[in-house]
Amino acid sequence: MPVVEGKEIRASVPAKVILFGEHFVVYGKRALAAAINRRLAVQVSSREKRGYHIKIEDIPTFGLELDLEVGNDEKRKVRPYKDYGTAAKALGYVRSSIEYLEERYGIGNEGVEIEIKSEIPLSAGLGSSAATCVATIAALKAYFGVKGDVEGIRSDAHNIEKIVQGAASPIDTAISTYGGYVLVERNEVKRLHLAELDLIVGCVGSIPLSMDTTKASELGLKTKTIVEGVKNRRAIFTSIFDPIFDAADELTARAIQAMEDNDLVNVGALMNINHGLLDAIGVVPRRLSELVKIAQDLGALGAKVTGAGGLDEMGGVGSVLVLPGESGDRIKAAMAIADALVMDVKTGGEGLKITHPTSP
Amino acid sequence: MPVVEGKEIRASVPAKVILFGEHFVVYGKRALAAAINRRLAVQVSSREKRGYHIKIEDIPTFGLELDLEVGNDEKRKVRPYKDYGTAAKALGYVRSSIEYLEERYGIGNEGVEIEIKSEIPLSAGLGSSAATCVATIAALKAYFGVKGDVEGIRSDAHNIEKIVQGAASPIDTAISTYGGYVLVERNEVKRLHLAELDLIVGCVGSIPLSMDTTKASELGLKTKTIVEGVKNRRAIFTSIFDPIFDAADELTARAIQAMEDNDLVNVGALMNINHGLLDAIGVVPRRLSELVKIAQDLGALGAKVTGAGGLDEMGGVGSVLVLPGESGDRIKAAMAIADALVMDVKTGGEGLKITHPTSP
Repeated sequence: MPVVEGKEIRASVPAKVILFGEHFVVYGKRALAAAINRRLAVQVSSREKRGYHIKIEDIPTFGLELDLEVGNDEKRKVRPYKDYGTAAKALGYVRSSIEYLEERYGIGNEGVEIEIKSEIPLSAGLGSSAATCVATIAALKAYFGVKGDVEGIRSDAHNIEKIVQGAASPIDTAISTYGGYVLVERNEVKRLHLAELDLIVGCVGSIPLSMDTTKASELGLKTKTIVEGVKNRRAIFTSIFDPIFDAADELTARAIQAMEDNDLVNVGALMNINHGLLDAIGVVPRRLSELVKIAQDLGALGAKVTGAGGLDEMGGVGSVLVLPGESGDRIKAAMAIADALVMDVKTGGEGLKITHPTSP
Repeated sequence: MPVVEGKEIRASVPAKVILFGEHFVVYGKRALAAAINRRLAVQVSSREKRGYHIKIEDIPTFGLELDLEVGNDEKRKVRPYKDYGTAAKALGYVRSSIEYLEERYGIGNEGVEIEIKSEIPLSAGLGSSAATCVATIAALKAYFGVKGDVEGIRSDAHNIEKIVQGAASPIDTAISTYGGYVLVERNEVKRLHLAELDLIVGCVGSIPLSMDTTKASELGLKTKTIVEGVKNRRAIFTSIFDPIFDAADELTARAIQAMEDNDLVNVGALMNINHGLLDAIGVVPRRLSELVKIAQDLGALGAKVTGAGGLDEMGGVGSVLVLPGESGDRIKAAMAIADALVMDVKTGGEGLKITHPTSP
């Protein structure tokens, strides 16, 4: 497949947060997710040598750089220059994206430079994997001139997530592709138009430097382990979990209504209730609980764990969402003191953007 | 009414903890409470001077001592010797008990010495008010030779709690009177026979020396304020709260089953779920959350807020229950570091005991 020499393609996608209904969505209940204005960009350009050179940088405090050599078999050689713990996870998605495109669309082995820059903390429930897949697929398809629409990119990216993880939520790839808001209802993904929210995201342990390599690589399995824990507890306590799930389903519906009414007090109150339900099903570790309770104590309108939550026995890493009301500065200070990476975010922003940096 | 000179009566009663279902019981759901081996004793003896001399001591770090002079009208004079914040609350129950007995049974105004010794922290959800009423009524009825059975004492004490508080749970007086375990089902109180549990009780701020007098006296209204908050949130979010209440009702039933099976792992798991449901309805303040999460992180089988819970805006005071498993010593150390008053307790012990200390 011919490629114009010197051509450059840049694909940029947003991270996601789950506002309401995480975990319960696995059981067919409603969940609401939003794009946030933290983005990941994949830039693809040509290079003289054949094979792919992949460079991941700007992931807070560490990076990853390696060569993926020519060849489409099990023995394809990976030569890492730098490799720090969880960053290796991102590589898995890039590699699988390349192999998926080779197999499905026959893209070639011309010399390709892939550079990934991310503002999205890894393993924090903010959809960095899906963002990596969507942006890589979008950039490579554009670079190699593969025909298709945006929905095709979303679908390809979702397939790759399933290949790498065994199973994947359709939410993350939908948000990275389309931005805005997504409602999942009976496992169907629907795009919603809602007003922007100003939130604080707090991440704990997204860069577990203190953990040894084995432990750090196990973090890649965190979500799966947490989801299985909920499933096991539900199997024992079905008659208790079923009404909790019903409450969560109704909660997401009420939250969408409150957002449509621009009723931030009720949006916050519903975040607090949602957090309690997540605690009831066992996905709120001490460190994330501390962040949520600090925010509530300091006057936040609402606060909750977001995404998979966490487990004490896995270091309590994970992320929380805060609707700060008037107390944002004090809440951010206290969360930082409690060892969180703290970010101001706006929800509902733009999805996939493809640009040609070297175009005139 | 004649009293034997030199006669002494001592009535001792246990404190209570709510193991499962607090708050939800207000809405007709099931709750399980237990006596714990922390007791309050009221000793009644004669004195030369007419009127009542009341002495409350051994309540951790402070005491209360006063004369209640002769006379049964609004202007009865109270002369306090010492009066420290929340201890004044206990007086209200003693005074109302005396007035109730005067009115209902015509006990006299002979010189009476009333001495109260307590191991039960005040305002901690451990039933110190009910214990005060039951023990005072039992001791005075025995001292004055008022006929009646134990059920009459429970009923009198419950009436006095209602007079002082406006409304009262039947659980606390039932536990202080009968000990053991009490199930409340559709507002009916039933005694249960279950095996003993070894628990840790952690109390935060039961002695709020740092608070000014106004704030401290407001703490007496804590339970009422918390209960009203739940009622208000339920009115707004009925369709979410109703299934949560159903989950809580089922949870208490499963917990009783687990206790009958001596299945401590499931008893603990159900405590954790119950805690999450209490958080969902908004009664878990930061300081109590911290204690529960510390215990869970350190390997407790289960941990939860007990009783009314608390509110951040009221200092986050309240109590938690921990089923420690093998980690009791570490959990107690960490809870103490987090500023809790920590007690080992056994559940299900003896109820009201009446003794005659000066009998031969």
